[in-house]
Amino acid sequence: MKPTPHPQPELTPLLAFGAHPDDIEFACGGVVAKETRAGRRVHFVVCSHGEAGTRGTPEVRGEESHRAAEILGATIEFLPLDGDARLEVRAAHAIALAGVVRRVRPGIVLAPSLVENQHPDHPRLGRLVRDAARLARYGGVAEIRSLAPHAVGQIFYYAVTPDAEPTDLPPVLVDVSDPEILGAWTAAMEAHASQIAARNYVELQLTRAGLHGLRAGVDRAIPLFPNDPIVLESLAPAGRGARAF
Amino acid sequence: MKPTPHPQPELTPLLAFGAHPDDIEFACGGVVAKETRAGRRVHFVVCSHGEAGTRGTPEVRGEESHRAAEILGATIEFLPLDGDARLEVRAAHAIALAGVVRRVRPGIVLAPSLVENQHPDHPRLGRLVRDAARLARYGGVAEIRSLAPHAVGQIFYYAVTPDAEPTDLPPVLVDVSDPEILGAWTAAMEAHASQIAARNYVELQLTRAGLHGLRAGVDRAIPLFPNDPIVLESLAPAGRGARAF
Amino acid sequence: MKPTPHPQPELTPLLAFGAHPDDIEFACGGVVAKETRAGRRVHFVVCSHGEAGTRGTPEVRGEESHRAAEILGATIEFLPLDGDARLEVRAAHAIALAGVVRRVRPGIVLAPSLVENQHPDHPRLGRLVRDAARLARYGGVAEIRSLAPHAVGQIFYYAVTPDAEPTDLPPVLVDVSDPEILGAWTAAMEAHASQIAARNYVELQLTRAGLHGLRAGVDRAIPLFPNDPIVLESLAPAGRGARAF
Amino acid sequence: MKPTPHPQPELTPLLAFGAHPDDIEFACGGVVAKETRAGRRVHFVVCSHGEAGTRGTPEVRGEESHRAAEILGATIEFLPLDGDARLEVRAAHAIALAGVVRRVRPGIVLAPSLVENQHPDHPRLGRLVRDAARLARYGGVAEIRSLAPHAVGQIFYYAVTPDAEPTDLPPVLVDVSDPEILGAWTAAMEAHASQIAARNYVELQLTRAGLHGLRAGVDRAIPLFPNDPIVLESLAPAGRGARAF
Amino acid sequence: MKPTPHPQPELTPLLAFGAHPDDIEFACGGVVAKETRAGRRVHFVVCSHGEAGTRGTPEVRGEESHRAAEILGATIEFLPLDGDARLEVRAAHAIALAGVVRRVRPGIVLAPSLVENQHPDHPRLGRLVRDAARLARYGGVAEIRSLAPHAVGQIFYYAVTPDAEPTDLPPVLVDVSDPEILGAWTAAMEAHASQIAARNYVELQLTRAGLHGLRAGVDRAIPLFPNDPIVLESLAPAGRGARAF
Amino acid sequence: MKPTPHPQPELTPLLAFGAHPDDIEFACGGVVAKETRAGRRVHFVVCSHGEAGTRGTPEVRGEESHRAAEILGATIEFLPLDGDARLEVRAAHAIALAGVVRRVRPGIVLAPSLVENQHPDHPRLGRLVRDAARLARYGGVAEIRSLAPHAVGQIFYYAVTPDAEPTDLPPVLVDVSDPEILGAWTAAMEAHASQIAARNYVELQLTRAGLHGLRAGVDRAIPLFPNDPIVLESLAPAGRGARAF
Repeated sequence: MKPTPHPQPELTPLLAFGAHPDDIEFACGGVVAKETRAGRRVHFVVCSHGEAGTRGTPEVRGEESHRAAEILGATIEFLPLDGDARLEVRAAHAIALAGVVRRVRPGIVLAPSLVENQHPDHPRLGRLVRDAARLARYGGVAEIRSLAPHAVGQIFYYAVTPDAEPTDLPPVLVDVSDPEILGAWTAAMEAHASQIAARNYVELQLTRAGLHGLRAGVDRAIPLFPNDPIVLESLAPAGRGARAF
Repeated sequence: MKPTPHPQPELTPLLAFGAHPDDIEFACGGVVAKETRAGRRVHFVVCSHGEAGTRGTPEVRGEESHRAAEILGATIEFLPLDGDARLEVRAAHAIALAGVVRRVRPGIVLAPSLVENQHPDHPRLGRLVRDAARLARYGGVAEIRSLAPHAVGQIFYYAVTPDAEPTDLPPVLVDVSDPEILGAWTAAMEAHASQIAARNYVELQLTRAGLHGLRAGVDRAIPLFPNDPIVLESLAPAGRGARAF
Repeated sequence: MKPTPHPQPELTPLLAFGAHPDDIEFACGGVVAKETRAGRRVHFVVCSHGEAGTRGTPEVRGEESHRAAEILGATIEFLPLDGDARLEVRAAHAIALAGVVRRVRPGIVLAPSLVENQHPDHPRLGRLVRDAARLARYGGVAEIRSLAPHAVGQIFYYAVTPDAEPTDLPPVLVDVSDPEILGAWTAAMEAHASQIAARNYVELQLTRAGLHGLRAGVDRAIPLFPNDPIVLESLAPAGRGARAF
Repeated sequence: MKPTPHPQPELTPLLAFGAHPDDIEFACGGVVAKETRAGRRVHFVVCSHGEAGTRGTPEVRGEESHRAAEILGATIEFLPLDGDARLEVRAAHAIALAGVVRRVRPGIVLAPSLVENQHPDHPRLGRLVRDAARLARYGGVAEIRSLAPHAVGQIFYYAVTPDAEPTDLPPVLVDVSDPEILGAWTAAMEAHASQIAARNYVELQLTRAGLHGLRAGVDRAIPLFPNDPIVLESLAPAGRGARAF
Repeated sequence: MKPTPHPQPELTPLLAFGAHPDDIEFACGGVVAKETRAGRRVHFVVCSHGEAGTRGTPEVRGEESHRAAEILGATIEFLPLDGDARLEVRAAHAIALAGVVRRVRPGIVLAPSLVENQHPDHPRLGRLVRDAARLARYGGVAEIRSLAPHAVGQIFYYAVTPDAEPTDLPPVLVDVSDPEILGAWTAAMEAHASQIAARNYVELQLTRAGLHGLRAGVDRAIPLFPNDPIVLESLAPAGRGARAF
Repeated sequence: MKPTPHPQPELTPLLAFGAHPDDIEFACGGVVAKETRAGRRVHFVVCSHGEAGTRGTPEVRGEESHRAAEILGATIEFLPLDGDARLEVRAAHAIALAGVVRRVRPGIVLAPSLVENQHPDHPRLGRLVRDAARLARYGGVAEIRSLAPHAVGQIFYYAVTPDAEPTDLPPVLVDVSDPEILGAWTAAMEAHASQIAARNYVELQLTRAGLHGLRAGVDRAIPLFPNDPIVLESLAPAGRGARAF
């Protein structure tokens, strides 16, 4: 998929954080494809090299990640913190991520959900990102004082697996049925060849999107979970609800 | 406030149900004013004459309601069910309300929240409306077969008091800070003169909207609670979050 | 699928209640097939003729239901209460269902989940069944005194759609991957030909079972939600958990 | 209580983690007794010497623990982490516990519940064990690469006190009414003589088991809380529910 | 136990509603004894004759109830609604109970908890009482206009069994350890001789109070669940917390 | 406001912890004023100098804090832990705070709420205080063994903003309508002149107290959230409920 030729410059950037090289792509690559295609700049920050996984060296996984980001129209950087399967909730990490927020100055931020019963790095990164978005607004944090404070518009949490979907928060469901979007998402997942050799994660995600699509009355949909209440100027944008079948 | 001279015909109607003559106005009159001003048709259906209240005869309250609806740019009808303070969750009521849904054919429906610890008519009407929106889709319901099935886009619940706001669902917050909107809302509440003689309900609502406004970064905001996940074509409309101060 | 030739007589009957002619089959037909195949007697009680649906006459739907029950190895009876889309929570209904419980004397009961935001008949029947299981134990209820009191072992709730799955209760996941079981389930769903003409409900259920299967480490699984804590003689039967991917 | 003479070799080991020398015994010693008696190997890992408690030296508490484990038919080791009342959620701890999981290779793991308002070491150890069970499956974690990955079947949380029982998760209730089991449990609690001098913890546990027993229709029962949905081949093992009196 | 000779006239009455002849006594007889002993007037309203139970005729149960109320120092009346095991949530019932509230004019009201998975009459009566307390404040309800409106101070829900205790609301725990209070409570339960022949309900309640007492640092305590936030003039009365062991 | 001339010596001290120099005052200064006026000793422990905020130097903020504490009649000390916006949940911090608890020996402790989606220091300090209150009871914690163990009566959580109010716990509402109390609270907030220059935090708090006051039937009320169930000798102190309008 090529980014649209005429990106709309007024769109704020989207900044997506991932704990491992393939998390963003599997959880919500279709949403990323849709946003870049609409002209939004998207940047990935990956916080480990996935070195604790059963398969794939850091080098291979880095290459896969760059390829996947390119397919989705996003830029990417690696910002290792404590290492894969070792992430801890440290104030210094939150401040480092707040520095990234100030540098990229996103309107929208994506982060892994806070649901605990999954890979322990995921909810910890989600909490660090939530804290970072707040610290980015405070003027007196010494390490990042050289960058101007920045307030993000909204954090959306993504779920890498169905069990990571919060059950106490309703999602927004993003329609990703467009064949071009679906194709880009699928290609981005398949770019992580080292990870999909053994288990069919691609099928998991497409099945899951199919089930959410059935709720939303479309072919495929991806759920994202807003961190804060949505502020609206009118009811129109929220006027289409997933009908609960 | 005058309705805008050139309503946009593509806007679907908004259908608001109230258990008592002043519920819609106090809970979310500002949202109604905003939608009618944007050219949306709004229709109120009031399901009792408020005859169990301490003050105001049915006649007086009917007049107040018509005046308030006019101020907000809405049409209004009364559809008494079991009577004020006597509403029960009966299948026949849900079917009757489904008939109204088929007649008005709204995209958006407003109803009182399902929170139980308040006036008992409120959550019961909320449940009836939720059921009605579903029955309106089923082709075989005998009483309403003469009207074509209709699927609403979204139900939003409103809260007549702070304690009626669900705590297990995040709201959307609608900005009603525009002085013209605020003025229309205030005038519509004050139209219910029989009700505001004894307790300052107007102040309650404006104070409450002020507190939600502080969350949303605006002067005043009204919370509404979507019944079903919001389906989006892009993240842009949901990209502004109430920042939790 | 034929019922196994030598049913084990010590297995207590399973009694499944449905609000509409196809609810049991779509929600958990695979579990029924598995239980009858293991020699358990299963009886369906369907509490309306589905006459409010968009498609299918009561006669057609009755024939479809008998065919589906036969495929699954179950017996079936119809016990209309208030009519489709008209069910109310009445004490008389609970007593009538308690009479059925006393007559069939099941160890296990299946009923629709109590989740509210779905077809209104579903949670209401769920509540009636839960109440019926309790009334069946009380000796002094006049209408059913001719039948000996009976205490069921466990009520499991089923979900007709994904949105009807309770989010505040963990399910048990029943493995239905065996091709013979899957085949019987699919055939039972397809027996409801009048219902699957317009929307692909069969695909919905198989997709959903596939997603639960991925959680459980099997091909397909169906979630059921126990009403009461499970009492165990040893940890062994509960020693296999769905791994949250 | 003597372990049964002919343990069934096919039973997978049970691995129980405790934050302090007496936690496992008080919370669920009866379950342990039942499992060892049924031939299951049980191993205790105690993560402090209880040195912050008001009573008992580490030496005395160690002796009491070995005696209690012996009574229950379990083996025991001490694996101090940060020290009593000092436990923190560190990635290094989770990896160390994952190493124990790989060494013991349990089917079932017991850990303290995640409920927060209790001794702070308890929920932290629970979280570490949950993380450890996941890390034990990942092939690339350097410190434990010499041990083959291992996937546990189920984690059950135990509650040391009534207030540590999760209220958002239903328990499984294990019947421990058998006098021999009850006797072994009581003896194992009483082996912690230094702890029961001042407050009647034994009475607390037996009273609590009596109340759960009343729910379960037996004399005494112990609640355990599964971390993941239970996967079943048939409904039979879950067919006995605690009847809510 | 004799009521104290000099009741303090400034104490507002306590009005307790029960669905069956023994519910109030088993659930919270100790609290009643404590309040009457402190000089508060207590009145019981029992909404069925318990005729659906397995044991005891209405006549016998009426006599037992009068005896139990006398032991606790309370007055009692019977107000049958739909009959035992037949109670429905009808507006007419709520209005009838609101009439009782206006007649007795209590500061404190006791009602069964709203937890659903128990005898169906219990949560229904709880909901009716909650509604009644609200309707008692409205001036326009025709049937009860002859009695002056009345606003109760607080509704407390009681739980007849442990499973009826709400898990989403913290209780207040009332110390009932005083031997005289415990004796009166026990005698009031034993007055229901027809009910305690078969199952040891008295032991259930005393065991349960013992477990709550262990939480509260006293011998026995009874939990009650306030319907609305407690309004305080100072923190002193709330300064003693159950310590979670 | 002057403290009352004759403090009642039998009142136990109140110990309030704040993460930043103005948190206690903004969240619940009115409650503090009321308690000191009633003769209770109040001591503030502030765990950072607020140096990460956008406005105000540590020196200025320290002076503001001392002035505010004086206005409220409280003493104050600073106990910096990891620094503003850097607080982590460390066992050493909990032990340090437990040492303060043993020194001050309060009956009542105030701490920021555990709600996560706010300034990250707030819920972390809340958790540390909760742990500290527990560690203060344990005899064997080496660092604080020189101070006698102490058990606090109750921890109340305060909310610095509306979004920090727990939604899963009911508050107690403290009436602060007395003009002298309101005046002292307002003056204490205004003492933090460096913080209120840019945003109207004082209006936020008074608006919020006004809304809670409307619930409670008074002019202004402040919500506090008890950590543990309240233990009562009688229902009288809890007999006034916020009426949910």
